[in-house]
Amino acid sequence: MLHNFNSGPSILPQSVLQQAAEAVINYNNAGLSLLELGHRTNAFQEILQEAKDAVKQLMQLNEEYEVLFLHGGATTQFMQIPMNLLDNTATAAYCDNGIWGNKAYKEARNFGNVVLVSDGNAEKYQSINKNFTVPADAAYLHITSNNTVEGTQWHSYPSTNIPLIADMSSDIFSRPTEFNKCSLIYAGAQKNMGAAGVNLVVLKKNILGKISRPIPTIMNYQKHIEAGSLMNTPPVFAVYVSMLTLRWILQEGGLIEMGKRNKAKSTLLYNTIESLPIFTAPVANEDRSEMNAVFFLKDAALEEPFLALCKQEGMVGVKGYRTVGGVRVSMYNALPIESVQVFCDLMQFFAQKNG
Amino acid sequence: MLHNFNSGPSILPQSVLQQAAEAVINYNNAGLSLLELGHRTNAFQEILQEAKDAVKQLMQLNEEYEVLFLHGGATTQFMQIPMNLLDNTATAAYCDNGIWGNKAYKEARNFGNVVLVSDGNAEKYQSINKNFTVPADAAYLHITSNNTVEGTQWHSYPSTNIPLIADMSSDIFSRPTEFNKCSLIYAGAQKNMGAAGVNLVVLKKNILGKISRPIPTIMNYQKHIEAGSLMNTPPVFAVYVSMLTLRWILQEGGLIEMGKRNKAKSTLLYNTIESLPIFTAPVANEDRSEMNAVFFLKDAALEEPFLALCKQEGMVGVKGYRTVGGVRVSMYNALPIESVQVFCDLMQFFAQKNG
Repeated sequence: MLHNFNSGPSILPQSVLQQAAEAVINYNNAGLSLLELGHRTNAFQEILQEAKDAVKQLMQLNEEYEVLFLHGGATTQFMQIPMNLLDNTATAAYCDNGIWGNKAYKEARNFGNVVLVSDGNAEKYQSINKNFTVPADAAYLHITSNNTVEGTQWHSYPSTNIPLIADMSSDIFSRPTEFNKCSLIYAGAQKNMGAAGVNLVVLKKNILGKISRPIPTIMNYQKHIEAGSLMNTPPVFAVYVSMLTLRWILQEGGLIEMGKRNKAKSTLLYNTIESLPIFTAPVANEDRSEMNAVFFLKDAALEEPFLALCKQEGMVGVKGYRTVGGVRVSMYNALPIESVQVFCDLMQFFAQKNG
Repeated sequence: MLHNFNSGPSILPQSVLQQAAEAVINYNNAGLSLLELGHRTNAFQEILQEAKDAVKQLMQLNEEYEVLFLHGGATTQFMQIPMNLLDNTATAAYCDNGIWGNKAYKEARNFGNVVLVSDGNAEKYQSINKNFTVPADAAYLHITSNNTVEGTQWHSYPSTNIPLIADMSSDIFSRPTEFNKCSLIYAGAQKNMGAAGVNLVVLKKNILGKISRPIPTIMNYQKHIEAGSLMNTPPVFAVYVSMLTLRWILQEGGLIEMGKRNKAKSTLLYNTIESLPIFTAPVANEDRSEMNAVFFLKDAALEEPFLALCKQEGMVGVKGYRTVGGVRVSMYNALPIESVQVFCDLMQFFAQKNG
């Protein structure tokens, strides 16, 4: 029995995997594989429409927003966002609270002026600085809602008069949140939303059309809106897996239910860490991520034996990111609390032996 | 019984679909879905390496070439190629032999000077003009090796002293061809190579590093080479389906065998068209595509009843492209000759009734 704590690509609901596998053989009993179906067929149009509708429903957003499913991962958006929204002579504001936010910031510098309003690097990204000012004339403010590598999470988004842009790759649809504070939300699908190979972009139409740079067609949000996410052949299978996962979230009770489950899982894990003196979690309490818990063995010599025990007992993906080290436990929507309980029992067993 | 003549996404080998479906449930009997596996695991590294090796083997290319699997479709490459290879003040040469080549040409104009050395639009793209001169100082010459919509194909690539770039999306791996005449070959996977959502790019390293424009990281070929196609989370499932399809091509006998089969299928179809006076194929004989045959009913009033009969008899995807009309029959690698025979029998039946 494996327990999948992978940070992404990561655990998906079993029912989604079953339906996705069936579709690869014979989609909807129509005699062809989903992989062999044209993307302009009614069959695929219905998949795409259901996925878009589910996003709007889960986020409770109105008609000012458009939902796009695009090729690529969040890294593609690091480029596409400033390409569409940051003029050569304009300024964008970025929060650097982890390696992904840092990468997003660096890419934006290819397109215009960029100011770092919050830089967590000096504190090793162990908390999120929320006291900063943003230039009033900035084109937008960019945050990373959850820092997968460092284990921090924004529990309330900053209030600002300029468009707020959030990379929600690793906590999208994990709980009810302030989606309507954002003018652009994006996420690679491969954590809470599906398989790698597709990007969700949700944006307010009124932020577009304000820059003078010519934008390559395939990168142009406005053109994708006009083409209904069908400018070219979309990543059909990845869109389908996203649709199935979104449908599963709705069937299970939506974001309120996801939020309850994720709160219960992360509370169990953080309480266990706090109760066992051999472990330590350096992230500030108020900024701890409900998705990715990062912690350490106080005695670094115990890290290797602990990770070896985890591996032996079927705990997958709990080694910390290579630049951070330690232990990282990812608890996405599809992870059952039973897996967290088994992991916590293992921590207790190890602590008793080595305490 | 369905016969899948879709132009793309299109028919794939049944054994590939079976293995892909199994991997979605339980990859390699290791207890997790392929969709739940990290892309930096040995399991995925082996998939990627096998796919790259198969490409090199099938194309018989030496170590001067690199193989990349990238996010997006060929449309992404329309932008990525000039972004990497065409300086602001330099000139690139394009052949416009169909709607995709035309789109590639238009995108390149965002990055530098572009000259159309061959424009088939005036002849409705019914032949490929091969008598043209290319500016000696052009950065590269771009062709579309097979025109999916118009049904034409380059049967020998132009010889030139500048780098030749070929969009092979719709005839890649369909026969032995002059891969080594090209400095960059690209293809969206969703025809002969797999599922939508991944791009194959094969390039000669010595064409890189010659422009002054800063290139966004995710679009930078050099950075992708350095990262071994793992700069960010790749489209894992689409890469896997490509690997399985490449393995299938090798197992079936490689490009020589694919070429024999495709020649047999297209010969059967074109001979049937020629033998039945109610049909007409306007494409010049020497430029006819072995992948996509485009033809018409001489009496346009018969088109609708013919397409209705096709639908009734399980012939999928034979309606011509919306800007061209008529009939289009796509015969990719995985299509058995039996499907072409059944379709030709139907043409004969229809001709007898309406001749």
